Amino acid sequence: MSDTPLRIIPLGGLGEIGKNMMAYEYGEDILIVDTGLMFPPNDLLGVDYIIPDFQYLYDKAHRVKGIVYTHGHEDHTGAVRHVLERIPAPMYATPLTKGLLEVKLKGDKILRNIPIHEVKAGERVRIGPFSVEFIHVTHSIPDAVALAISTPQGVVIHTGDYKFDQTPIDGKPTDFAALASYARRGRGVLALLADSTNADKPGWTPSERVITPALEAAMREAPGRVLVATFASLISRMQQVAEVALRLGRKIAFVGTSMVENARMARQLGYLRIPDESWVSLEEALKLPPQEVVLMVTGSQGEPSSILGRLAGLGGRGRRPFNIEPGDTVIIAAHPIPGNAENVYRTINRLIQRGANVLYDPVAQVHVSGHASQEEMKLMLNLVQPRYFIPIHGELRHLVQHARLAQQVGIPADRIAVVENGHVIEFRRGQMQVTERVPGGWVFVEGGVVSDTSIRDIWDRQDLARRGLLLVQVPTDAQTGRLAGPIDITTRGFSLPEGGDEFLALLRRRIKRALARGDVDDLEKVLTSIVQNLAYTELRRRPVVVVILKSRAQTEGDGHQKG
Amino acid sequence: MSDTPLRIIPLGGLGEIGKNMMAYEYGEDILIVDTGLMFPPNDLLGVDYIIPDFQYLYDKAHRVKGIVYTHGHEDHTGAVRHVLERIPAPMYATPLTKGLLEVKLKGDKILRNIPIHEVKAGERVRIGPFSVEFIHVTHSIPDAVALAISTPQGVVIHTGDYKFDQTPIDGKPTDFAALASYARRGRGVLALLADSTNADKPGWTPSERVITPALEAAMREAPGRVLVATFASLISRMQQVAEVALRLGRKIAFVGTSMVENARMARQLGYLRIPDESWVSLEEALKLPPQEVVLMVTGSQGEPSSILGRLAGLGGRGRRPFNIEPGDTVIIAAHPIPGNAENVYRTINRLIQRGANVLYDPVAQVHVSGHASQEEMKLMLNLVQPRYFIPIHGELRHLVQHARLAQQVGIPADRIAVVENGHVIEFRRGQMQVTERVPGGWVFVEGGVVSDTSIRDIWDRQDLARRGLLLVQVPTDAQTGRLAGPIDITTRGFSLPEGGDEFLALLRRRIKRALARGDVDDLEKVLTSIVQNLAYTELRRRPVVVVILKSRAQTEGDGHQKG
Repeated sequence: MSDTPLRIIPLGGLGEIGKNMMAYEYGEDILIVDTGLMFPPNDLLGVDYIIPDFQYLYDKAHRVKGIVYTHGHEDHTGAVRHVLERIPAPMYATPLTKGLLEVKLKGDKILRNIPIHEVKAGERVRIGPFSVEFIHVTHSIPDAVALAISTPQGVVIHTGDYKFDQTPIDGKPTDFAALASYARRGRGVLALLADSTNADKPGWTPSERVITPALEAAMREAPGRVLVATFASLISRMQQVAEVALRLGRKIAFVGTSMVENARMARQLGYLRIPDESWVSLEEALKLPPQEVVLMVTGSQGEPSSILGRLAGLGGRGRRPFNIEPGDTVIIAAHPIPGNAENVYRTINRLIQRGANVLYDPVAQVHVSGHASQEEMKLMLNLVQPRYFIPIHGELRHLVQHARLAQQVGIPADRIAVVENGHVIEFRRGQMQVTERVPGGWVFVEGGVVSDTSIRDIWDRQDLARRGLLLVQVPTDAQTGRLAGPIDITTRGFSLPEGGDEFLALLRRRIKRALARGDVDDLEKVLTSIVQNLAYTELRRRPVVVVILKSRAQTEGDGHQKG
Repeated sequence: MSDTPLRIIPLGGLGEIGKNMMAYEYGEDILIVDTGLMFPPNDLLGVDYIIPDFQYLYDKAHRVKGIVYTHGHEDHTGAVRHVLERIPAPMYATPLTKGLLEVKLKGDKILRNIPIHEVKAGERVRIGPFSVEFIHVTHSIPDAVALAISTPQGVVIHTGDYKFDQTPIDGKPTDFAALASYARRGRGVLALLADSTNADKPGWTPSERVITPALEAAMREAPGRVLVATFASLISRMQQVAEVALRLGRKIAFVGTSMVENARMARQLGYLRIPDESWVSLEEALKLPPQEVVLMVTGSQGEPSSILGRLAGLGGRGRRPFNIEPGDTVIIAAHPIPGNAENVYRTINRLIQRGANVLYDPVAQVHVSGHASQEEMKLMLNLVQPRYFIPIHGELRHLVQHARLAQQVGIPADRIAVVENGHVIEFRRGQMQVTERVPGGWVFVEGGVVSDTSIRDIWDRQDLARRGLLLVQVPTDAQTGRLAGPIDITTRGFSLPEGGDEFLALLRRRIKRALARGDVDDLEKVLTSIVQNLAYTELRRRPVVVVILKSRAQTEGDGHQKG
């Protein structure tokens, strides 16, 4: 067997490992799997989204032979633009995933010309030294695939996101036979890399199908309009809602740009089946009798700027497309991502205040997870019978739990690698080794572009935010260095209490005294410390203090002073 | 019957209704139930905690005849200091609750002298026109009570936090007989006010007892030290951990000031039973063989400054009392409050990185809720058989759901009042009416004192935090109004990209041009807008811009300019 190792590298993301992007490297050739984004946790203030730090690949772009996609959700595709800008490699995807990628790239004159090869589940493509079979799996979006990646070092099965839904909405269960076949073929499966998202959930994840009765009951009982909020890429849920709506004589409208574009594309490709007469625009929908309408909207995560967020009056600068009225029924067909729970519940409470009846899990079973639970994970391990096991797609706590499950089904602990982003796993002659660590963190995107924001900047933001800003302008005489006028104070993020005049007077006395001492070395530092102390002793506050000396004696050259 | 109405007012809190504080008013007399605090959601930057806005009572302090406590958890007692400072009324509480209040007040020379009357469950006290029976209920702390408040308008049952635990740790199930007796007595129960926290959870909440096997398995298998993180006021959990620890020959140490103080007090009062030889200090514990130790620590909510947060290396300025080592087992015996989930999971991941084995629900059943689920709520309604029903203790979504359950057991919709904080509910001659609305919002506490921080200040903080600060100092000549030196730039929370020099040069040209135009009206505003536009067009950023003109021509008087 070749002495050239197969190297597998989970690249980037925050907290979750190997979910957004991974690299498979053999000799000079590299294969990328997925290019996803993450939505930032609440305390990453100002960050729009997070993409993987793939700087490891920057100088290896010419060696990347292709980018393979497992499915079309944002956390697996959303960074495509950023990746293609550096690595314009051909893409390989199933038809729906291809459609979703095209929607994403259509605005970019250059990137939209990079080829996306359509590969149907069951087909195999050769990409450099890699031969990749696309194996159909069930998830909460149609056309999801696991990858069987044959390399000179052996076969690796990469599950992508999956669950074993025996009665999926599109009628196509996981291709168990294809998955199982690798266990018996040749030297068997070298390694399994499998989705760990729900590794702490016992049992089996329910079928998407179980939602239908809850949706049907809700729509049947709804006296007026029904709004269903979900992710814009949750195509299965759209189909399910549409089927129930049609059965009950309601027409369906999609609201929100991403929702409309994805629905239109999915329908063109045949993944969303809605007859012409039942597909209406928002304008048409608002003119229909309320009990004949279903609106599919964005905002299932409580985002203030989403359609649902705006309807709930949560701010967001966008226009409110219509108003929530008593009699409206709102169905939240998604689970909150941990950091979003507060926003989701706030949205629900506000909608209730406006008179809506709001249904969400667990009040009604209107959502199920798209990821395998523990028994499904064990089944995957037993189907594939890998020599080595690498849990991926999850936080460290999920990987550790998935590793425990693997041991329960008989994989020895020393054949399991729990790694973090950037760790390089090498396979050579049937042996696994975790070797070096390359950059594999995250990069912030703000205002649509990759930002230079560092974690230090984020700390500064949190500091500013928690403590507020106290800006003190001190006019001094350039000759004498003494106080040469009134002190001016500006606050942001906190208010001086009544009695602020007293504070100001005291501040003025202390500053005057300090200036009179003639301590000109590090004067701003000295004054800053005086202001900080006084703010604490007098006001019990610790604002970020910026002191500005207004003296005519300026230093030379425009200065850029970093806080 | 009297024409004087009984008025019930849920006072303050954020999101949750009637949880932290309520007022019962009859004629000139007022009774307060509970004085709790709330921990702030993530986006209330810089706020330590939130207390109810009880300004409605400020000028009625002399009319308050007493403050009655249902149990000793923070969300029902934590604002006691702030309330007593305005309303020094006598308190009434069961022994453990009294002990917890005393711990809270012991540092205050004045407040600690206000009497706390001990009332045992089963006893009745007269407070002004109110006669209050304390009825034992089960919750996740011993000595919790529901209140039967007899008034001239009828009897009101106020449940406080409860669940129907048939096998509680202290062996004392809810006093069903006392609760039920009111249904048959006199005119029956006028109104039930009941805990709605888990109104969306079907079935029954499991007994606290179910945790014991999981704790026992975890401690038995643990190769080294065991750390258990929970709330400092979760006295039942402390007892449960202690029992298992003793059985397995481990000694127990409490770590963290509040943990130690509460444990010591609970033990003195007999609510925590640990023999002398098994109770050790942290110092002693660290000298023992690891497999003989259990440490009870704070930090179950992932607070960075808590003991567990510090052990996880999450910052927090406090010293790390010891280090987490491979072989340590950490049990998180609490559920994350929605806004805290991210921090809790981050803590867990960091502890795993440091080599600990971390157990948490659902990986192991080491926590159950202390609140009633749907079937228990129905049982409460059927036991008490109230004429009117007012769901309390929960967000609006929970109250609405609890109201649905009440309708299912036969309470007509028009006898149910779903209200928000500050709504006044009046009972007169057996009729209920929701009348005026009084202030009943929230007040922020920062640095231990009530702050003047407004919601506007919070928005400013969020703005600063999301966007960062760009501070531009522009020296101008007082005579000519022209640029009189180098422009100085300070940033906080974002960095100028490479090529920042270019931005600076451009900024300088634009400002110079604007000054030369001699537009002296609103000059700061004009310049601010120039800087904002340039930051967006050149850097794609929208920082908070503050422009400071440095001219010798100062206006008179020290100014306080509010952002």
